Amino acid sequence: MSNTGVPKTHEDILQSTALAFVSTLGPKGEPQTSPVWFGWDGEALHFSHTKARWKYRNLKRDPRIAVTVVDPATPYRYIEMRGKATIEDDPTKAYADAMAKKYTGNDHFEGDQPGDERVIISLKPERVYARG
Amino acid sequence: MSNTGVPKTHEDILQSTALAFVSTLGPKGEPQTSPVWFGWDGEALHFSHTKARWKYRNLKRDPRIAVTVVDPATPYRYIEMRGKATIEDDPTKAYADAMAKKYTGNDHFEGDQPGDERVIISLKPERVYARG
Repeated sequence: MSNTGVPKTHEDILQSTALAFVSTLGPKGEPQTSPVWFGWDGEALHFSHTKARWKYRNLKRDPRIAVTVVDPATPYRYIEMRGKATIEDDPTKAYADAMAKKYTGNDHFEGDQPGDERVIISLKPERVYARG
Repeated sequence: MSNTGVPKTHEDILQSTALAFVSTLGPKGEPQTSPVWFGWDGEALHFSHTKARWKYRNLKRDPRIAVTVVDPATPYRYIEMRGKATIEDDPTKAYADAMAKKYTGNDHFEGDQPGDERVIISLKPERVYARG
């Protein structure tokens, strides 16, 4: 196990092109969950997000986050990470492009609307649960 | 759209054998999320769970839940449902068997430990978000 708490047996899941399921807290503290493209750099999980969407507003209000990724080849193997998200601006949308490259092979992310502002949301896990 | 709020365009996702990602609230109100096998009967989503696990204890404390299912064939299509979970005992483990049948083809669920008690957790969605 590295100092991130991610067991070596499960690091492969974080290198896969599975979707990550992100859970945040809504305005009344209710859970919300949705899929994202993600990257893992060995210390933290990252994903790109626009400022217009709920997850951004939720995390500005309460940074607590849980992220689960399932092994696409062996669905009973998965990893859940919990902690507090950090948010940084991504004015060049470089991280959205990197995720488009990882998931589609394209050099640029094409899904934005004019005026969309992008951030990078990161989770350095405080707790890790590896199953299967 | 049926009276569940699920658009007809997205009902197929709820008939698929994708995993459902369930988000609940931990003891400090923090989000937690994990994958489950699920069924959809046209009005509510259901999954089987043991009383020993966190999701059961979380939902006994606070029934608020969010569940997201992604179309396995077209990953940008997904449906998120939110509401309050209800819990009923499943002493014969019939629903665990039904889910084993759906996901593996086997007649019986083989994953329990001796003494595990099973419940059926159900979500009749109060809010539905369909994407893609």
